[in-house]
This record gives sequence, structure tokens and C-alpha cells, in this order.
Amino acid sequence: MKLLRVGPAGAERPALLDQEGTLRDLSALVDDVDGGLLADASALDRIRAALAAGVLPALDATGLRIGPPVGRIGKVVCIGLNYHGHAAETGAATPAEPVVFLKAADTVVGPDDTVLVPRRSTKTDWEVELAIVIGRTARYLESDEQALAHIAGYAVAHDVSEREFQIERGGTWDKGKNCETFNPLGPWLVTADEVPDPQTLSLKLWVNGELKQDGNTSDQIFPVAEVVRYVSQFMTLHPGDIVNTGTPAGVAMGQPEPKPYLRAGDVVELEIEGLGRQRQELKDA
Amino acid sequence: MKLLRVGPAGAERPALLDQEGTLRDLSALVDDVDGGLLADASALDRIRAALAAGVLPALDATGLRIGPPVGRIGKVVCIGLNYHGHAAETGAATPAEPVVFLKAADTVVGPDDTVLVPRRSTKTDWEVELAIVIGRTARYLESDEQALAHIAGYAVAHDVSEREFQIERGGTWDKGKNCETFNPLGPWLVTADEVPDPQTLSLKLWVNGELKQDGNTSDQIFPVAEVVRYVSQFMTLHPGDIVNTGTPAGVAMGQPEPKPYLRAGDVVELEIEGLGRQRQELKDA
Repeated sequence: MKLLRVGPAGAERPALLDQEGTLRDLSALVDDVDGGLLADASALDRIRAALAAGVLPALDATGLRIGPPVGRIGKVVCIGLNYHGHAAETGAATPAEPVVFLKAADTVVGPDDTVLVPRRSTKTDWEVELAIVIGRTARYLESDEQALAHIAGYAVAHDVSEREFQIERGGTWDKGKNCETFNPLGPWLVTADEVPDPQTLSLKLWVNGELKQDGNTSDQIFPVAEVVRYVSQFMTLHPGDIVNTGTPAGVAMGQPEPKPYLRAGDVVELEIEGLGRQRQELKDA
Repeated sequence: MKLLRVGPAGAERPALLDQEGTLRDLSALVDDVDGGLLADASALDRIRAALAAGVLPALDATGLRIGPPVGRIGKVVCIGLNYHGHAAETGAATPAEPVVFLKAADTVVGPDDTVLVPRRSTKTDWEVELAIVIGRTARYLESDEQALAHIAGYAVAHDVSEREFQIERGGTWDKGKNCETFNPLGPWLVTADEVPDPQTLSLKLWVNGELKQDGNTSDQIFPVAEVVRYVSQFMTLHPGDIVNTGTPAGVAMGQPEPKPYLRAGDVVELEIEGLGRQRQELKDA
């Protein structure tokens, strides 16, 4: 299933995109698409049954904003330098174990919402990423199979990053990863049963129509299952938490000078095979 | 005022500790002590008026658990190496600007809740810290005065840290800062009007009765107002967000070998002048 949330920011309603591409209203069945729903197998079954029975009312998509596909997100865990090609372009060594950092949940916006270039930013960069949405509380998982069983689904994430704030301002990367609007997510959460192999997905990102990133999750250093298993040794993952699994080669930081960092007026589009497409216009904060 | 939340984890009710040390129930007046309340001056005024009128019902404190003093926390921003003494003991240079990292809100527990030593941890360490509780949405603040006006109050925080995970496992510090139960907070939120100078507070921490940290916020490299102003240049702070402002000297990492890292059975107590006292027993995760 493709689950999503539509409507004004902060007042989204739960919805589903059916196989014919029609938007269906879920608000009579569930309050929200959130960790509570994702952890509730019987609620998901009720949605499946209602979809099969053809009783879900259609929603008019005209002019409807799409929000992030998960509400009440607790945290966004990110894996850095997780593609061979991206590690190489940044000059970093291939990590011996996953590099972990955090984005605050309040950075998450809808897939087509405006992205703000922070004040005094000169190095705002793009990163298309496969996001994992956690479906069950995960702590100290012992195997990849167990890890996969804790994944509710997948979505497109844009891990927007300010490189000067991230790298040149002292301390950890978090300063350059947590600016407002820095994590567009969606359009949909595609449930894990419809993503049989998360390690064969093509990821693409364009800036002003020009293809900048063209990767595949097969290039991940630490695959999805390993990432969830690994992170669960250090922190507890809760239903509705997001794990951004890293970006392939092609970011602005990896280009020759003058590096083409983002500015107000730029348009970024990104897409992952089967998971949909995002489009953001950049504006000044 | 001293605001707090009492009752079972996840089902705390709002309360107030009055000047006589009596616990008063706030649940007839407000739903929770959270960002919504802290941003609502008229609700805080209603509490003040009810307290002055003597109409708040007393609560029997016997056996009552104290939860974290803020509910629905969005994020916990932390400042690293922010005391001259602590920077020196870790061998780090004095930072040129604040070192920022994040803890997920799900690490926050009550002031006397059990702290779990993570599996495979050998370097679980303590850190008493002054926590700022944000009261108004803060972005791109321009002065220390403005920053102080965005602070709802202060509390005691324990920034529990696993040093091997933090420093020796690659990437950012976040791996060693986000283990479950790693941020006891409370007992109270003391409103900012009752903390006339946050830069003259004594902080103390004991392990098994032995004094380990004995500092004062006067030793902070970046004072409270500067920290909030600075962080607001990189991320938006929302009502109910927490900012841990760093720890003074005396952590286990700074001691001679064999360093006295925490183990199951240890008891940590910590206290900040005017902000109350915490006591945690350590157990294995």
C-alpha cells in the first residue's frame, strides 16, 4: 500500500493512493498515519480489507498539499557516507561501521514544500536518500531478518545539508543537518511488502532540470537491514521513527569549484523507483 | 514557579510544588506541562493566580513517581565542552564557537527513573547539566536579551554518555548520547523569573555517595543566553525543546586509569542550586 497524509501543514488527514492512482480517504478508519498505526497490524489489515472491498471514498487531489507520510515522528536517524560513490567524492575513507547522526523530527516537511536556504548559508546542498520507516520497537536486534521485520515501509527523503555549518563550524555534523525544512519526506510510505528488495532501487535527483545524482541502493556500503540492526545496538527505534540511509554520489560538495550550491529560486526534484517523486522550490529563510 | 509532572511514565499529570513544599494538582487548569503551556502566557498567569488564591488541591506525594517536567518534548539540543574545566580534563581545546549535538526526545526519563547501562557498554559516564526549557519559537535571534526572553525556565539534566560509542565508533557523538534512558530530566521546571542569574548556579554530582562533579555555571565558556542565540542561527527552537548546556569537570573520562565508569548497581545523585535533585540507580539494559 501507498499511505500518505494530505492537507494543510499540521492538519493532514490520512489517505491512500490506490493502484489506479486514485487518492482514497482513510480518515473514517484511522486517525493518522503514524507510529501507532504502523505498529497496529489489525488496523493495517482493516485498511487493506476496505481497499479490497472498494469502500474507501475517493478524495479530490486538485490543489491538495501532500504532507510528510508519517505524523508524530519521534526522531530521524541518518547514516552518513553510506554509498561507495559518495564516500569517494567527499574524499572520506569507506567507514568501517555505519556513521550515525540525527535530524530533529521538526525538520520534516512535505515532499513538495518550500525548502529554506538558511540565513548566512553559502553551501546548502542536496542529498536524495532512501528512508526507512520503523514499524515496531527495535532494540538490540540480532539478525538482518529481525531487522527487516521491524520495517513498516520506505519513502523518499531529501537530507538537505549545509556543508559549512556541518563541517567547518566545529563539533558534530548536526549543525548543518537541522535547519528548518531540511528533511522533505514522501510523497508516500510504501509498505515493506511492496518493496521486495530495497537494495535494487534507483535514486535520482535533478537541480533546475539537470540530473545531478543517479545512483542505486545496490551501491550502499551498509544495506538497509544491517543499518537497522546496527542502530538498534545504540538507540531504541520506535514505530514512526525514520532512518535516512545515506546518499549516492553527485552532491554539490563533490563537484569541482565553483561548487553549485543551492540558492533561492532553484528547483530540486528527486525520485526513487516505486517510491514517488518530490519537487521543492528553494527560498531564503 | 516549580512546575512538574507526576504519575506513571506516559500518563503523568501536571503539578506544581508550592513555596511550602506541598505538591499541588494542576490537572483541572491545564492538560500538561508542555510546549503549548509554556508558550501560553495567559495559562501560566491562570496558574499563578490560582496558586495565589490558594485554590489548587494538594496532591499526596507518597510513592508518587516524578516524570520529566516537560511533556511532548520535540528535541534535546546539547552543547559539548562548554565548561573550561571539562574541556581541559578531556584534553580538548576550548571551542571557538559552541559545539552542538542532539539527543532524541525519547531518551528523556524522570529524574529518579532507572538508567540503563547499554549492552556491551564499558564506558558509561555521567554529566550533570543545566537544562534550558524553551518557551517561545526561536529562530535567528539577534541579541542575548532576545534569547533570554525565549527561555521558559531551567531544570536539572543528566546527559548520560557512553564514551566508546561516542568517540571510538566512528562518525559523530550521537551514537553514545542516544541510548535509552540517557537523559533524566527534572524534578522541576523552575520558571525563568525565579532564576535571576543562570550563570551563578552550583552543580554537583555524586556516584555512590562520593562527590565527583562540583562546578558552577560561572565556568561556562558560552553562557545560557549566548547558547540560545547561537543555536537559533542553525535550527529553530520550539516551545518545549530542551537545551542541555554542557557539564563541568569531574566526569569518569577525565579520571586516571582505571576510569570509574558506571555499572549496574551504581547510584548517581545530582543537584543544581535551586533546581532540585535527581537520584538514579543503574541497571543493565
